[in-house]
Amino acid sequence: MQAVSNFWASLPDDLEHEVIDTLLDDDSVRIERIVSHGQSSPEQGWYDQTQSEWVMVVKGAAVLAFDDGREVRLESGDHINLPAGCRHRVAWTDPDQKTVWLAVFY
Amino acid sequence: MQAVSNFWASLPDDLEHEVIDTLLDDDSVRIERIVSHGQSSPEQGWYDQTQSEWVMVVKGAAVLAFDDGREVRLESGDHINLPAGCRHRVAWTDPDQKTVWLAVFY
Repeated sequence: MQAVSNFWASLPDDLEHEVIDTLLDDDSVRIERIVSHGQSSPEQGWYDQTQSEWVMVVKGAAVLAFDDGREVRLESGDHINLPAGCRHRVAWTDPDQKTVWLAVFY
Repeated sequence: MQAVSNFWASLPDDLEHEVIDTLLDDDSVRIERIVSHGQSSPEQGWYDQTQSEWVMVVKGAAVLAFDDGREVRLESGDHINLPAGCRHRVAWTDPDQKTVWLAVFY
């Protein structure tokens, strides 16, 4: 039997740190819900992932930075594909609301 | 350079049929946005997919039916994982609003 879960269920209240929930974990794909609230990556903390990542800001706002200096702002519904090895970091997330990401690692 | 797209952009107006947009197409994963407006699968039209599918109703409402007679209702934010070979069909989508699905085939 397939279980139904809700993406908006159990949104964390205490957001001192980002909170990650794994929605699906399979050999070829992992789907996560990530909740941020003003967090950003540490200044030198580039993500340099061996997996590719398709990510959408479902709610909230964020800025991703790339190691060529480029920045992109993501608002509700914006999605971007980050190929494996594409060095990036979260430069900013909105301090005034929760930012909820859906990330598909593949 | 990674391009940003918006999930809510260009929602189709003419919804005589379901409208499918491919957001990502890779060897191991395909991500689609599917917009329905009252459509359901043909009565005998079971989906019997060789790929697994994780699907979320981002907005709207729908009912999935399984070949054991079970039905599950999905509303905004509800997601379900459908393993390969899990025979299912869309029994109903809300005729009063657009139902927008995010489907990850893997």
